[in-house]
Amino acid sequence: MKFQLVVLGDELLQGKTKDANTFWLAKFLFSKGFSLGSGCMIGDNISDIASQFQKSIEENDVTFVTGGLGATNDDLTKFALESAFNLPMEFSQTSFDYADKAYKRYNKSIDENHPYAQMPKGVEFFYNQAGIAPGIMYQKGKNLIICMPGVPSEFQGMIEEDVWPWLEKGLVAHKGCFKKTISIQTKALPEETIFLRKYPDLWEQISSFGRLSSLPHILGVTISVNLEAASEKDLQKKEEGFLAFIKGHEISEYIWQIGDLSIQQYIVKLLTQKKLTLAVSESCTGGLISHHITNVPGASSVYLGSVTSYANTTKEGVLGVKPQSLKKHGAVSECVAEEMATGVRQNLGADIGISTTGIAGPTGGSEEKPVGTIFICVNTKDQSTQKTYQFPGNRIQLKHRFATAALFALLDVLEQI
Amino acid sequence: MKFQLVVLGDELLQGKTKDANTFWLAKFLFSKGFSLGSGCMIGDNISDIASQFQKSIEENDVTFVTGGLGATNDDLTKFALESAFNLPMEFSQTSFDYADKAYKRYNKSIDENHPYAQMPKGVEFFYNQAGIAPGIMYQKGKNLIICMPGVPSEFQGMIEEDVWPWLEKGLVAHKGCFKKTISIQTKALPEETIFLRKYPDLWEQISSFGRLSSLPHILGVTISVNLEAASEKDLQKKEEGFLAFIKGHEISEYIWQIGDLSIQQYIVKLLTQKKLTLAVSESCTGGLISHHITNVPGASSVYLGSVTSYANTTKEGVLGVKPQSLKKHGAVSECVAEEMATGVRQNLGADIGISTTGIAGPTGGSEEKPVGTIFICVNTKDQSTQKTYQFPGNRIQLKHRFATAALFALLDVLEQI
Repeated sequence: MKFQLVVLGDELLQGKTKDANTFWLAKFLFSKGFSLGSGCMIGDNISDIASQFQKSIEENDVTFVTGGLGATNDDLTKFALESAFNLPMEFSQTSFDYADKAYKRYNKSIDENHPYAQMPKGVEFFYNQAGIAPGIMYQKGKNLIICMPGVPSEFQGMIEEDVWPWLEKGLVAHKGCFKKTISIQTKALPEETIFLRKYPDLWEQISSFGRLSSLPHILGVTISVNLEAASEKDLQKKEEGFLAFIKGHEISEYIWQIGDLSIQQYIVKLLTQKKLTLAVSESCTGGLISHHITNVPGASSVYLGSVTSYANTTKEGVLGVKPQSLKKHGAVSECVAEEMATGVRQNLGADIGISTTGIAGPTGGSEEKPVGTIFICVNTKDQSTQKTYQFPGNRIQLKHRFATAALFALLDVLEQI
Repeated sequence: MKFQLVVLGDELLQGKTKDANTFWLAKFLFSKGFSLGSGCMIGDNISDIASQFQKSIEENDVTFVTGGLGATNDDLTKFALESAFNLPMEFSQTSFDYADKAYKRYNKSIDENHPYAQMPKGVEFFYNQAGIAPGIMYQKGKNLIICMPGVPSEFQGMIEEDVWPWLEKGLVAHKGCFKKTISIQTKALPEETIFLRKYPDLWEQISSFGRLSSLPHILGVTISVNLEAASEKDLQKKEEGFLAFIKGHEISEYIWQIGDLSIQQYIVKLLTQKKLTLAVSESCTGGLISHHITNVPGASSVYLGSVTSYANTTKEGVLGVKPQSLKKHGAVSECVAEEMATGVRQNLGADIGISTTGIAGPTGGSEEKPVGTIFICVNTKDQSTQKTYQFPGNRIQLKHRFATAALFALLDVLEQI
């Protein structure tokens, strides 16, 4: 089963907006036991789009298309279908009804000359639950092109609610094999140290179970193995065999999770299991740690909140950092990190407080504390644990690295409690 | 000048990691007066990559490639070059020297059998300032394939520091024309209302100045026009003509910015100009507003900090929200939003306080206040301004919509001060 995603839009190729649909669709298909085979991105040029459509429908079972479905002049998808497959425009009752129904949600209605009422002959439609423009499907032989809106919520809604349920009925017969991906998440060792230096046989050993990929992060590596088997029972056996191997291997002491949770999801899970509450104080990360944690549904049962103390007055007033600590050591110091973590834990009444203070740049660095320096403290009523790093990167990258490092520092402490 | 980006990696097609390089490169090229012509994403399969390389080098002046340069077994880029263009592997002194120099930063060295020392015959190399793996360039006729690491900081560093400066020397002759994009950012009107209902001639009128694209956001539309001219002087004239037209058009009352600043950059700019300080209190947005604001370099001169009051105890203890307000109206209410905004403004000593309280889901909604409900308050010493919305979306989407809505509410107030 071959899937392709064609993403349309000048605004993407000019760097004005980020494509969020490729990542989402890749994840979605993978969760259903399939893989996105390839992706491509092209601009708002009708002949480029038309020739891509002709090529895509030959080479793929299903081609998903996002973008270009709206009613303004840069929306070319339906005209590209007309041109690629010679489908003259005509009035479509279904498309008209779908668009009219959607407009009624906003107390508007359309007439028969509206762009959504004129469609290529012989296509089919999907209703848009989260927006207006209907989805358009064209079939050639057994292959499909399914055109959906570019707005992520509309695209995702249409796939989940309508396109996939419809598609899945015809796909079950194609599946052929049972698949599962297992992710091994390690910390403290760089990728090359694992595979080239410390355990040079590990790659081949894991590969005997299934196709392997390895993804280095700032403080760890995610090793993923795709297991395949002809029956559900065989797949389970393979999984048990692989887990027994990996748990018996020396690498296991560096594994913090076998699974796909993000570091923040894993931390919320640990906090919930251990019945502990968390408070965060952020300086250079500016709210990002709190944002990460509150992305996890259910975080509210263990997370009390955070103080972003960007100004020294906020550090003193809200967190109780001592003026003399700021004066003697500077805001970016172990001492202030500890007072921030202790202060936020006590003021919010939490079991654990974590803090970050560092220099995200582009200015503010010094020879002693260059841009990229971060002090992290994790404080409980019994102890304070400090971490210090110097990372490369620009302001946005550094904020993300700092936040990840703080979450890993918290993980180290949580594993011990 | 035709550019393509080929992004490699199973992890991208399986939704395990997000491609950040396409957006970055598109933006980068556009800032240099060029456009990315197309993008494509393929998996770690040597024959797929090799045939893409053969096709790309025929159809594009410069093909950029990211990913697959590392030293582990899923890194196939150099083997795909070998296979596509028949370039046998051999010892490369340059690649060895570049990799060895990079490893020395980590106090390591490599021998002549290391993967980085064995490279396809006849290629050239770029030093990796932010990582280890050298970049690889292959030339066929006048066309180039330039392979870079997939890690965003390494890819971006290599383009900025080495690849682009080298490439630009040969590109100047190709440029031919002067380009500029002007962005008109509107608020309060949906895209269709602007172009189909209120100002049906506007699209064509703007198009007479240059190619137009329109991008709807949650609370506004960005209209971009690409101006082109044969000389710098003509370009300036065209720009003046376009600005005079747009400022004289009725749409201008809905324009909040002519330019490319994000809403948070624009807000930091306004605060700086007006010498005002800001404090934020977040409930459902969980730190995201603060993260957005602190992404702006220089934010520290106007931004005092934030309190993420996820728990009611934090709302009461740190922000001074009254227990009876929480009891009578609930945490998600106009009344609590106002007390949060006032509390954070006063406690942090800021000129303006903003707050959000709402329901990001997936649970916690009710008939009266469904998931997607948000109360926003902007408070100054003279007044409180309230906004209430109900947005569609999942938890992450809602957090982003809530945060954007809060920043627009703040913009409305800042424009009046």
